[in-house]
Amino acid sequence: MIKLALVGSGNLAHHLYESILNLEEIQLVGVLGRNPETLASFDADLTTTDPKTLPAADLTIIAVSDDAIEAVSKKLQEKHGLLAHTSGAQTLNAIKGKRKAVCYPLQTFSKTRTVVFESIPFCLEAECEEDYELLERFCGLLTTRVVRMNSKDRKYLHLAAVYVNNFVNQLYQTAHEILEDRELPFDLLHPLILETAKKVMDNRPTEVQTGPAKRGDQGIIDAHLSIQSEANKELYTLLTQAIQNSQNT
Amino acid sequence: MIKLALVGSGNLAHHLYESILNLEEIQLVGVLGRNPETLASFDADLTTTDPKTLPAADLTIIAVSDDAIEAVSKKLQEKHGLLAHTSGAQTLNAIKGKRKAVCYPLQTFSKTRTVVFESIPFCLEAECEEDYELLERFCGLLTTRVVRMNSKDRKYLHLAAVYVNNFVNQLYQTAHEILEDRELPFDLLHPLILETAKKVMDNRPTEVQTGPAKRGDQGIIDAHLSIQSEANKELYTLLTQAIQNSQNT
Repeated sequence: MIKLALVGSGNLAHHLYESILNLEEIQLVGVLGRNPETLASFDADLTTTDPKTLPAADLTIIAVSDDAIEAVSKKLQEKHGLLAHTSGAQTLNAIKGKRKAVCYPLQTFSKTRTVVFESIPFCLEAECEEDYELLERFCGLLTTRVVRMNSKDRKYLHLAAVYVNNFVNQLYQTAHEILEDRELPFDLLHPLILETAKKVMDNRPTEVQTGPAKRGDQGIIDAHLSIQSEANKELYTLLTQAIQNSQNT
Repeated sequence: MIKLALVGSGNLAHHLYESILNLEEIQLVGVLGRNPETLASFDADLTTTDPKTLPAADLTIIAVSDDAIEAVSKKLQEKHGLLAHTSGAQTLNAIKGKRKAVCYPLQTFSKTRTVVFESIPFCLEAECEEDYELLERFCGLLTTRVVRMNSKDRKYLHLAAVYVNNFVNQLYQTAHEILEDRELPFDLLHPLILETAKKVMDNRPTEVQTGPAKRGDQGIIDAHLSIQSEANKELYTLLTQAIQNSQNT
């Protein structure tokens, strides 16, 4: 049995909370948050806004925004056991003082979407072997994919995640705006969006690339440029060049 | 019963061929291609490299590359019925002479992946009502989503498709290269890639955006810039700005 405390009341904290409640091997001892409103959706017997009243735990998961990790870790005590933040971008040392760890679930979390942790990679780091094993034991209850990773590698992984998540989503948004201007429904693109994603599950992206940039079809490229806003033209040109560079290397 | 001829031997032609063979309402009368080698995977009784020997049909689907549509349509005759190309980027008038139409299936096709046409939108255009109805009847056998669309709207749709397919794939490639340089496996990103795609099935992309660009977290943005190649820095900066512009409008 692992005694676990949870810090944070955002999307990830919520999804972890829901999953932890189903685990017999975990005893959730408390949930610490700043905001009584967002804490209201957790069991009232568990929540507190005062770090001093957060019960002792073997492991405390700090699922807060990047810039709050340092401050909140300073307020936690030795009795809160191993402190693990969940950020992809912060090093182990973002946690001040006590026993430090990182537990980074590589996924995007929204309130409205169900999360199945089972297939989500958890990237773990700790200062000593004993702490790593504790963290691994906990994460192994949530997922089938636990990966040991140092802060430097995690930084690159987080960068790559920004490309396939935030930046890809921005390209979806650009397409959304192009269609909206013509009063065309975005859901026409749904099958293409899903197939494009699924294709790279089995293939290296450059190997399945298609389209005018890859073919060097300047007629189509010029036609596309002629119907875009200045800002989109710049993006279109840069991505077209990037495709052509990737194909040539 | 619709008598159908097929022109082309690429990915789309192959997938259409496979699906058409299962349709009782369609009689496939012939397959025309330039290359005997790529034609070899079709039924030999149906294939020809000579347009003159392609049998008469009610409808001829021209599934060839954009720059071959004009030339091949010139070689087809009145007996080949309604000529429909399958390009998103070419207007109706890419077909020379005879009865013209467009039948654009909005999807990316690879040899190695199974295609389920049923959920793929087919964007149709024809010069007269009778021809449109014939094309609609044919496409309605393949898909549940037939959309009437003129050449101008189709051009914008094709542009949007380049963003969510070719450009998104290039971002997957960029992430692939970032991880490869650190000897980290790309499949760590698979769940994130799929979730990012699925999220926009139910939501406007800007509404589900997350990450350092959206939060305006300049510390992380600078840290990311410091570990990238010059070419990627430019792309990163432009996409970060695009996210911030989209969030502010």
